[in-house]
Amino acid sequence: MSLEVQNGGAENGTSKAVVFSAVKPQLFVEVGKANEAVQFYKSAFGAAEVSRSMHPKRKADQELPLVLSAELELGSYAFLVSDLPNDSPAPVKTSGTGFVICLETEDVEAAVTKAVNAGAVAEGEVVEGDGACCGGRVGKVKDPYGFVWMICSPAKKCADGEAGAIPI
Amino acid sequence: MSLEVQNGGAENGTSKAVVFSAVKPQLFVEVGKANEAVQFYKSAFGAAEVSRSMHPKRKADQELPLVLSAELELGSYAFLVSDLPNDSPAPVKTSGTGFVICLETEDVEAAVTKAVNAGAVAEGEVVEGDGACCGGRVGKVKDPYGFVWMICSPAKKCADGEAGAIPI
Repeated sequence: MSLEVQNGGAENGTSKAVVFSAVKPQLFVEVGKANEAVQFYKSAFGAAEVSRSMHPKRKADQELPLVLSAELELGSYAFLVSDLPNDSPAPVKTSGTGFVICLETEDVEAAVTKAVNAGAVAEGEVVEGDGACCGGRVGKVKDPYGFVWMICSPAKKCADGEAGAIPI
Repeated sequence: MSLEVQNGGAENGTSKAVVFSAVKPQLFVEVGKANEAVQFYKSAFGAAEVSRSMHPKRKADQELPLVLSAELELGSYAFLVSDLPNDSPAPVKTSGTGFVICLETEDVEAAVTKAVNAGAVAEGEVVEGDGACCGGRVGKVKDPYGFVWMICSPAKKCADGEAGAIPI
């Protein structure tokens, strides 16, 4: 499995290739909640915190130190959790039409149960068939910070139309 | 680098460990735009499409086949792009407070330029210092589907407060 990919330029006429070495979702939570969220993700998913940086310049009247970014690892994957300052511009808050994060595991039920025990809310039952994971079992949980996680069987390659659909 | 992580149960009293084998952000775009979005991500980031599944049950009066899920690879990472049906419930549309996806690369400027050439909009200049990536250079682009991508130098481990901050 290659750790890098060449973003080659031949296709669109640019000459320079770009190599990406990591892709990390960054989740912004309500200001002051990042530390709590990190603890939740440790408990719910077994994530390990590998680094944390704080906002270096806080105003004197702001007692709470804000988390600029905490990096959490799930195996060879990572995601980031950050406090969202109240004065952040809208684009981050409204990024895109919608998103979830898919977590692949052989034991969907156990993972859902563990997340729910940690404080997530299950949305519907674990069911068969899902486009995100192309077949297999899938459960959906919403965490206390509003993020939705699809917990599903490892993806299998499949042809168009083979996957069943569940309502998203 | 281990590909799996044990979500051990000792910490919160459950007995079963859960292993996650992949973490994949899934991006929902306006209904009917997923195919176009896939082409954009190929062009902007050099992503490779590895699989696609379609909604198996479309009503006769809906001419457009909807993408249930297209899986795109960036090196050893993957993300998913899906059409968001108009009748989807709110949780997916409003998932969380905010999020971006961080792409790490040694050549931030070239990656930003390439994304912009493909149709993304740069938000501000490439600057030094960022919490998400813990130092180094960082640029921000918004893609035509509303998602924000932070393009930054590879993360380095650092102590609290070492990273500079840029406004998010």
